Amino acid sequence: MVCTCHKESGVERKDIPENDVLITSEDPVHPANLICELCRNFYNNGWVTGTGGGISIRDGDKIYIAPSGVQKERMVPENMFVLSLNSKNYLRTPEIYKPSACTPLFMSAYTMRNAGACIHTHSQNAVMVTLLFDKVFEISSIEQIKAIPKITEPGNLWYSDKLVIPIIENTEKEEDLTDSLQEAIREYPQATAVLVRRHGIYVWGETVWKAKIYNEAIDYLLELAVKMKQLNIPTVKEKI
Amino acid sequence: MVCTCHKESGVERKDIPENDVLITSEDPVHPANLICELCRNFYNNGWVTGTGGGISIRDGDKIYIAPSGVQKERMVPENMFVLSLNSKNYLRTPEIYKPSACTPLFMSAYTMRNAGACIHTHSQNAVMVTLLFDKVFEISSIEQIKAIPKITEPGNLWYSDKLVIPIIENTEKEEDLTDSLQEAIREYPQATAVLVRRHGIYVWGETVWKAKIYNEAIDYLLELAVKMKQLNIPTVKEKI
Amino acid sequence: MVCTCHKESGVERKDIPENDVLITSEDPVHPANLICELCRNFYNNGWVTGTGGGISIRDGDKIYIAPSGVQKERMVPENMFVLSLNSKNYLRTPEIYKPSACTPLFMSAYTMRNAGACIHTHSQNAVMVTLLFDKVFEISSIEQIKAIPKITEPGNLWYSDKLVIPIIENTEKEEDLTDSLQEAIREYPQATAVLVRRHGIYVWGETVWKAKIYNEAIDYLLELAVKMKQLNIPTVKEKI
Amino acid sequence: MVCTCHKESGVERKDIPENDVLITSEDPVHPANLICELCRNFYNNGWVTGTGGGISIRDGDKIYIAPSGVQKERMVPENMFVLSLNSKNYLRTPEIYKPSACTPLFMSAYTMRNAGACIHTHSQNAVMVTLLFDKVFEISSIEQIKAIPKITEPGNLWYSDKLVIPIIENTEKEEDLTDSLQEAIREYPQATAVLVRRHGIYVWGETVWKAKIYNEAIDYLLELAVKMKQLNIPTVKEKI
Repeated sequence: MVCTCHKESGVERKDIPENDVLITSEDPVHPANLICELCRNFYNNGWVTGTGGGISIRDGDKIYIAPSGVQKERMVPENMFVLSLNSKNYLRTPEIYKPSACTPLFMSAYTMRNAGACIHTHSQNAVMVTLLFDKVFEISSIEQIKAIPKITEPGNLWYSDKLVIPIIENTEKEEDLTDSLQEAIREYPQATAVLVRRHGIYVWGETVWKAKIYNEAIDYLLELAVKMKQLNIPTVKEKI
Repeated sequence: MVCTCHKESGVERKDIPENDVLITSEDPVHPANLICELCRNFYNNGWVTGTGGGISIRDGDKIYIAPSGVQKERMVPENMFVLSLNSKNYLRTPEIYKPSACTPLFMSAYTMRNAGACIHTHSQNAVMVTLLFDKVFEISSIEQIKAIPKITEPGNLWYSDKLVIPIIENTEKEEDLTDSLQEAIREYPQATAVLVRRHGIYVWGETVWKAKIYNEAIDYLLELAVKMKQLNIPTVKEKI
Repeated sequence: MVCTCHKESGVERKDIPENDVLITSEDPVHPANLICELCRNFYNNGWVTGTGGGISIRDGDKIYIAPSGVQKERMVPENMFVLSLNSKNYLRTPEIYKPSACTPLFMSAYTMRNAGACIHTHSQNAVMVTLLFDKVFEISSIEQIKAIPKITEPGNLWYSDKLVIPIIENTEKEEDLTDSLQEAIREYPQATAVLVRRHGIYVWGETVWKAKIYNEAIDYLLELAVKMKQLNIPTVKEKI
Repeated sequence: MVCTCHKESGVERKDIPENDVLITSEDPVHPANLICELCRNFYNNGWVTGTGGGISIRDGDKIYIAPSGVQKERMVPENMFVLSLNSKNYLRTPEIYKPSACTPLFMSAYTMRNAGACIHTHSQNAVMVTLLFDKVFEISSIEQIKAIPKITEPGNLWYSDKLVIPIIENTEKEEDLTDSLQEAIREYPQATAVLVRRHGIYVWGETVWKAKIYNEAIDYLLELAVKMKQLNIPTVKEKI
């Protein structure tokens, strides 16, 4: 008699097609798994509903990107594109999906800032701020600012430092944002994010966790700024 | 000695009554299972609390509809009605429930637009918009608009296109909405949704996933529009 | 060799103390279990945070009530009080807790209205409405009103019917509300709920599910009414 | 033949390094486990996003504190610092983390008030209230006030009592708040919380559950106060 219980509870190792090796791992923080988990988190925050937004993670030369037009909270690792940062060639292409229109924007964060991950959301707080501010979003003297890095020097902003995030104009097609996004990245070397008018925000960081933390902290500040504007409280506090 | 562990972890296949074959499946995306899952999602979004709202999915000739007056987040497949699109006869009737008053409205989306699913919510964003707009809801130049289809031609709206959703007047009984809903569907061939004043919204799509995506994207736009109105920002942007 | 797996996955039946028979059941809808589940739902809605609010369910002569001052989302069946409706005696008293101050208020719904359950929340929508309305809360011509029963005749309100919920003044001690609550119940025979100024709401129904549905539908209407007031939209629509 | 199922479902007991004994327990309410659970709860409430905020629990002489700059919803017991209240020495230091900048602030609650736990959040309601009130936050005649203790005498506040929470000015570095926090604790012997302008709130209690309940009840009151201010309703009601 053979007890077969372990076959029921265990998962039998199948042969993995060559194309799938890149996205198959039991490690929950493998990029292909983590993208799925973080997108469920973003969905619950209302940042990627209706297939909007996305996230890309870099692992050395390999860039993982979720496809275009998919429900972000229902993604599985098999949906992922994998690109080579150096060759710009696709190392893996899922069967039925097309690449994200955000791809050249994510690549800008990798090539110009050596980012480890880039997050794009349609956060309503981001959209509202672009309707209430002109060329840049500015806020100072809120504790949460201390979660944001200085970029051009080590360490994070201090409490009374002014956080400045450039706002670029939206375009009909997402990929047409690339030039103005790159221009904003050059013009604002201290920025770790770019707002897109009537559209959303791009946030990057040197690791996926830093990108996630910056995105959460910035969204908190955007939400607070909208509330302050509604009560006619200036978002930048004069230093006394 | 016989190891009986598998009996504990496995589910023994019971004989399924003829009436239940239509709603019995281990496939999580079978319409009878998916309606239950999506209704829990809608409940958590506040769209179907207090038994309000509902969803119907079409599978070929078979139309699956949740019953009237049930708690949408506690439904099980056994609660489902199944109708034939062609014969309009009920293929399955659950024991203790009565058919949804939305049935003729869902059927309009199937017969007039060949929809694959239709969602009805009591979203507060939808109700608020019908209190702030007159004959139609209009919004333009918000990125999320690009998730909405053009319907009368292939592809989705562009960023600066104007999304127009007709608003019909509510009636005392839900089924009495049928005429004006059908009139709105005829009059607005580009619409994939109809708002009902002081009531909610109907959204359909050629598949259940498309209907879900459209509903999420439209609700996002309705929520944003209410915020814009409160800050006196026009929802339709003049093209320059 | 004996396979012991089933001992690990199964739960061994322990002898239940006499006092605990009333609250011990594997049925998820047994009142002692359901109170715990619904309180987690209410907690997630912000209705019973900080130990506020509560719920009582009647099963024949047995009244189940959660204790005073406990975290509603962490309750277990062992925490429950059980009272006899007829004798007013406690059939079961948990070891370390004191009876809810809501007890005489819940009992009023049972004795005066033959309720099957009574829900009390500190919903902020309820508190806000009592700051914006005088003697009664009134709303009409919102679809969600159709989830509320007429009470004095069979069936529910129609769309254009006016829902009226009396508002009583708060007192220093919760039990001192009993007289004015009972007076409101007598004075408003059509009410299935009473608002308490600067405090919250009591909602009851002939079954626990009806009470839950009424509470959800009413809270939806309270939330909507606050938004309408903020935009100077009257909550009662003149019939044309 | 040996059935090995139990090896799959059970967890084999490993040797625990000496440093880890303090934070290793299967009891879900052990401080090291409970800090992780409560931080997930706080994260879902938006109180500790972007690594902001934190919590400390005291178990006799042992003070458990989460490290600085970590994602609060992803913490595990191994991340915890453990301090001796008497000796002020670290009994346990996790490998890669640095101590929380809140440490001297948490210690003030332990040494000056004999607290059992102290919670720090970046709640937006707290920040907003510090933008709308001057030296202190005051509210009266809201039922939820009855969840807050009188501190200088036994029992909780009554409904019409005035809850007063001091507001201190923020500093560039969190540890520099210590002096003014201690001054506020001395000056307001009835306070179980201190608000920090443009930053957040510190709340403590004699047990972790009391601290959690006070924090929930206070945040409810802060949220309500912001809504009342927006509608020009005074937060302190004149006694008649």
